[in-house]
Amino acid sequence: MSEENTIFIGSKGVMSYILACVTQLNKGNNDVVLKARGRAISRAVDVAEILRTRFVSDLKVKDIKISTEQIKESEGGTANVSAIEITLGK
Amino acid sequence: MSEENTIFIGSKGVMSYILACVTQLNKGNNDVVLKARGRAISRAVDVAEILRTRFVSDLKVKDIKISTEQIKESEGGTANVSAIEITLGK
Repeated sequence: MSEENTIFIGSKGVMSYILACVTQLNKGNNDVVLKARGRAISRAVDVAEILRTRFVSDLKVKDIKISTEQIKESEGGTANVSAIEITLGK
Repeated sequence: MSEENTIFIGSKGVMSYILACVTQLNKGNNDVVLKARGRAISRAVDVAEILRTRFVSDLKVKDIKISTEQIKESEGGTANVSAIEITLGK
């Protein structure tokens, strides 16, 4: 799977990410991968659900993975943050 | 699967839910199911990850489901909210 079809979910509105997903799918990609960390995880699930129920009716949740990532803090230490990866496909 | 081993994740601190999970597992249940809606979804992933990496090392993510639930608003209408269900087991 190419990295190209990965959408990183941050703090923008849900509809921006939905638009990004629709664009990827319209380019001919059959799959789109949503990645999010920390509080953006809830938003990633919202994007997946709204996309699937309202915009692309034949889209299915193919895989969901959760993990722990280490991020470097500006003070030099590291912190653990939860992450999610949702693979959607036709 | 009995309903007994389901932990509903709300707005309490992560450690309260981890304690609830550990209690379930110590009762002899091999599986524990975390359910959360809306913004609590991120917290459910945190609970799963902290539990798995720090407290119960042989625990694995068996299944993750996402869905859309309808909730009744106090004004009488309904609103859609995303939900997650994480099944952890030994």
